[in-house]
Amino acid sequence: MIRAGIVGGTGYTGVELLRLLSAHPQITLSAITSRSEAGRRVDEVFPSLRGRIDLKFTIPDSGALADCQVVFFATPSGVAMTQAKALLNQGARIIDLSADFRLKDIAVWEKWYGAKHTSPELIPDAVYGLPELYREKIRTARLIANPGCYPTAVLLGFLPLIESRAADLDHLIANAVSGVSGAGRKAEVNLLYSEAADSFRAYGVSGHRHVPEITQGLADIAKQIVGLTFVPHLAPMIRGIHATLYTRSTSRSDLQKLYEERYSSEPFVDILPPGGHPDTRSVRGANTCRISVHQPSPSSVVVLSVIDNLVKGAAGQALQNMNLMSGLPETLGLDYAPIVP
Amino acid sequence: MIRAGIVGGTGYTGVELLRLLSAHPQITLSAITSRSEAGRRVDEVFPSLRGRIDLKFTIPDSGALADCQVVFFATPSGVAMTQAKALLNQGARIIDLSADFRLKDIAVWEKWYGAKHTSPELIPDAVYGLPELYREKIRTARLIANPGCYPTAVLLGFLPLIESRAADLDHLIANAVSGVSGAGRKAEVNLLYSEAADSFRAYGVSGHRHVPEITQGLADIAKQIVGLTFVPHLAPMIRGIHATLYTRSTSRSDLQKLYEERYSSEPFVDILPPGGHPDTRSVRGANTCRISVHQPSPSSVVVLSVIDNLVKGAAGQALQNMNLMSGLPETLGLDYAPIVP
Amino acid sequence: MIRAGIVGGTGYTGVELLRLLSAHPQITLSAITSRSEAGRRVDEVFPSLRGRIDLKFTIPDSGALADCQVVFFATPSGVAMTQAKALLNQGARIIDLSADFRLKDIAVWEKWYGAKHTSPELIPDAVYGLPELYREKIRTARLIANPGCYPTAVLLGFLPLIESRAADLDHLIANAVSGVSGAGRKAEVNLLYSEAADSFRAYGVSGHRHVPEITQGLADIAKQIVGLTFVPHLAPMIRGIHATLYTRSTSRSDLQKLYEERYSSEPFVDILPPGGHPDTRSVRGANTCRISVHQPSPSSVVVLSVIDNLVKGAAGQALQNMNLMSGLPETLGLDYAPIVP
Amino acid sequence: MIRAGIVGGTGYTGVELLRLLSAHPQITLSAITSRSEAGRRVDEVFPSLRGRIDLKFTIPDSGALADCQVVFFATPSGVAMTQAKALLNQGARIIDLSADFRLKDIAVWEKWYGAKHTSPELIPDAVYGLPELYREKIRTARLIANPGCYPTAVLLGFLPLIESRAADLDHLIANAVSGVSGAGRKAEVNLLYSEAADSFRAYGVSGHRHVPEITQGLADIAKQIVGLTFVPHLAPMIRGIHATLYTRSTSRSDLQKLYEERYSSEPFVDILPPGGHPDTRSVRGANTCRISVHQPSPSSVVVLSVIDNLVKGAAGQALQNMNLMSGLPETLGLDYAPIVP
Repeated sequence: MIRAGIVGGTGYTGVELLRLLSAHPQITLSAITSRSEAGRRVDEVFPSLRGRIDLKFTIPDSGALADCQVVFFATPSGVAMTQAKALLNQGARIIDLSADFRLKDIAVWEKWYGAKHTSPELIPDAVYGLPELYREKIRTARLIANPGCYPTAVLLGFLPLIESRAADLDHLIANAVSGVSGAGRKAEVNLLYSEAADSFRAYGVSGHRHVPEITQGLADIAKQIVGLTFVPHLAPMIRGIHATLYTRSTSRSDLQKLYEERYSSEPFVDILPPGGHPDTRSVRGANTCRISVHQPSPSSVVVLSVIDNLVKGAAGQALQNMNLMSGLPETLGLDYAPIVP
Repeated sequence: MIRAGIVGGTGYTGVELLRLLSAHPQITLSAITSRSEAGRRVDEVFPSLRGRIDLKFTIPDSGALADCQVVFFATPSGVAMTQAKALLNQGARIIDLSADFRLKDIAVWEKWYGAKHTSPELIPDAVYGLPELYREKIRTARLIANPGCYPTAVLLGFLPLIESRAADLDHLIANAVSGVSGAGRKAEVNLLYSEAADSFRAYGVSGHRHVPEITQGLADIAKQIVGLTFVPHLAPMIRGIHATLYTRSTSRSDLQKLYEERYSSEPFVDILPPGGHPDTRSVRGANTCRISVHQPSPSSVVVLSVIDNLVKGAAGQALQNMNLMSGLPETLGLDYAPIVP
Repeated sequence: MIRAGIVGGTGYTGVELLRLLSAHPQITLSAITSRSEAGRRVDEVFPSLRGRIDLKFTIPDSGALADCQVVFFATPSGVAMTQAKALLNQGARIIDLSADFRLKDIAVWEKWYGAKHTSPELIPDAVYGLPELYREKIRTARLIANPGCYPTAVLLGFLPLIESRAADLDHLIANAVSGVSGAGRKAEVNLLYSEAADSFRAYGVSGHRHVPEITQGLADIAKQIVGLTFVPHLAPMIRGIHATLYTRSTSRSDLQKLYEERYSSEPFVDILPPGGHPDTRSVRGANTCRISVHQPSPSSVVVLSVIDNLVKGAAGQALQNMNLMSGLPETLGLDYAPIVP
Repeated sequence: MIRAGIVGGTGYTGVELLRLLSAHPQITLSAITSRSEAGRRVDEVFPSLRGRIDLKFTIPDSGALADCQVVFFATPSGVAMTQAKALLNQGARIIDLSADFRLKDIAVWEKWYGAKHTSPELIPDAVYGLPELYREKIRTARLIANPGCYPTAVLLGFLPLIESRAADLDHLIANAVSGVSGAGRKAEVNLLYSEAADSFRAYGVSGHRHVPEITQGLADIAKQIVGLTFVPHLAPMIRGIHATLYTRSTSRSDLQKLYEERYSSEPFVDILPPGGHPDTRSVRGANTCRISVHQPSPSSVVVLSVIDNLVKGAAGQALQNMNLMSGLPETLGLDYAPIVP
């Protein structure tokens, strides 16, 4: 059994991590910290976990994480970078679900996250936790930068096209839509039910923190700089990311075959049959990315890519990474059907 | 033209009042105050009002309300009671959409609202603004206590039954359901989309502020004390109140006829044909209460009563009261069809 | 491994059964029949099951069920009663999720379901599959009448009160609310998104098929006839039943303790701490019933009871019954946390 | 007063037309036909119209439309083309909300709508009812082809850019999202609440009927053929179209100014201040199109354009056209604030 701890854990990625960990056969959750909820039982904050998580939130500095072999950070940006080094020195391995270690270029990170990075020396060691791209590095990593939800959907959608040089790398477009839980469990007026329900809108057209994360990933695949227009939108649903990716085709290859082959041995990527349209519902609660690739005209390609933002876009992928790091079967504790309807 | 002002106006009853006032042919809105948004254009906060409301929010103490003939309070509890007297002294008439003047028993008010009432001397003059019950008093009132949303739906639903002594007054049950906007435009976690969507729950079973307001109204109709069990619920919808009222029948009268006759000249109460089930959708955006009355067994009565909590349950009823107070046709500016679907 | 078959399986209880069976370690699904979808792959109809169910729908009369040890009927009313006898004669045990064998009084069944019952001789052997009430009989039953969703929530909510004679049995009220999936996967205008969203309504106030099922269950607990007023409602959510139960208290006992003790060894019933309000979200996707009991006044009792209509209200309870019938641990394949948010 | 009739009227564009007509001061609705609902009262089918529409549906061939000066077709494709000529010969003017007269190229129409066009001789006279583009022709038209909802949002969004030659006409992308009411009031499983709620998906990537309508409009503006990739999506909301339009900028002009000037005298197009993100909520129930224009990089342009699909995308625009055809103020009966929240 692996002794795991969670820092943070009162947000949506935290409660999802708790849900998944509660069913994982090889993990013992030994501590969960939260400054705001310290002393309260976890299942008092989240009654859905009654009978499944018998822990109280503890204060972050209580040493409660001391004997953890793996520590998950389900915190806002800026927390993991201050605590990571001490935990690593204790011998723990870290999976950071926040953005602290995702960007290799510190200046870019500091610009987008509006703070000075306190552990720049750890960044070179941090492995970007997208198993479909970095599986071998993940196995031996001490520090995982777990990908953002938009980047996961967009990168997996573009990956085969870019690896095979079948896209116009200067003019990629990612039109992405997120459910409201993607914005977190924050008391903000614009996230209220009465604001977000029965409405749809774009946001951050002029710039979004996920853009440098996506372009870093795309550039790493392409081995060159890429041009990306990214427009995120908020849809009135709880979970789900839907990315509609546009590029001009620069190749005559059979894209359906390309995608099927690229992902043929991936346990959590599913290429739909030709002509498919994945809905976010079809991955709800599951660690799956479903993709369809279309060529509406000879020169244009449209890729549809869906994930559950809290699972493959956060907590599920974190667990997938933990399985890899621990030498466990990659799908352990993650192999459940989506919840439909 | 009547010069009107609004105190508060950044909440949902406020923006609904603005929507309705913007289409009312006999009102000029001369001022709207808000401490938090002072200086901002109204249509910057509410883009839906672009081109319709050409005002900025002003600070509450700016004297902006000095020349208003009618002032609406769309504020949390505790504000109107501190400002009412000065405005009344200026000659303004007041329609308070908050609860400050609804309860005749000050001790009860102070218990439920957790504060000392600062204008108890105004309470005897305040008229409870339910036109179907107090129309004549409203016409000449200086100070209107505009009813709460739950009380409006419940009182209109029980009214004919109680007036005609056809109910068991000791054991009334009101099972009521509200859309999320009824809880206001407050940044609270439990009102977030991701919390309230796709879920349903009761709250306040042990007690709710609307209970004394409802029982006061019922007792005034019955001319005796009544026994009420009231359970409010939160449903995943934006607008709407649905009250399901239970009582034992103590009479053999034709209840359908009773209801139709009681409300035959009411412009905003609609009794459905026998066997009907009003949905909240059928009154969305409109100042209408729709009611059905059923007798599933000889001794039991079930009344279904629906309103839009922001219209007949708040801003629309306030405007109906203003029309009455101003000698205007009661339906002026309120006579629009609900929005379906 | 137990060889199981499903008759029907294109509705919501069917797809939920498939989801649960796909994760059950002791079941092999050998056949699933559907007249309308015969020949199509299951995962073509339900893409969420891609990679999990490798079967095609077969025509009902194909003999595909011949070697099944357990057969689930996830069909509309009227199907199971025509096929049950042949399957029982083959030695299969049957769990019928429809209403064909729920009512002991054939005349009542025929009145509510508008058809002649074709297997009245099987009714005495049918065991009502509510484990909290009939666990021992279920273990040895050949034919299970799996309870309806409303009856499950209402019966579990009233059970301790009635067993302990703490309720006024003549005047029970069950105000129940269902998500839209409770109405099935039928192409009907009133179930369209644009009809059911952002709205709330009662239905069937004058009578509902679940009334005789509930009163039969209540009477069996009480050992006498009971009087029930039942009003079902439709809420704009996918899953969930919320029952608000009202009765007059006829006892001075500690109801919290009564409920906790009655259900202390039940794996799927959870009594919340005093003052709780369970939300349907807290059981979404799980086989759990959560209950709170309140006494808003000395003489009135309000019980809140929530389930997921497709799990504890249908497919999950069916699986719980199958576990019992097969001598497996009762919670096998059902012990997962609800999905929140 | 103008005597108007409606053919069809049991769908969502029909009931929306009824809502708007019921508040229009210069129209008398004299007849509404429906084969399926003939004989039923309109307000029995749509209780929201109780007290507002005192008509029954009549059978289509009853001569009921004989004295109408204007006839609206709110029918599926293929109906208006068979009845238009007779009505025109009677002197009626026609506003067809279906697609029968939208496409000038009959072969293209026949391909997409899968039928032979029965009135090709009327097509040259049909005026495409987008007032912002064809206002003068509309005034004198006898037959209006009222635009589709997607085309309205996309054409108004691209219009200034294309008129001013500031777009790359070969590579336009329109990523569009619709609420479920856009699919009509049809009893189809994929439109059920339990299918469409809490999910998001693309559809018709390989081709959609609105593509030729949009490209015809764009080409008419550009005076040349344009290349368009159009991907429609279904979002879990009742009303609303959100179009996110992508093109490469081929000009250095101030796009904000360009848009503001182009639409400065348009009563129903609103350009948001720089940096805006219109939400569909902000136009719900109103005949308004709100637009924002962004340049996330020097060479790329993103336009956001929102409408209510049933108002500016259907019934409201039809009424706007009727006002123009009748010499009435263009905004008469349409000048109401959107409903928020």
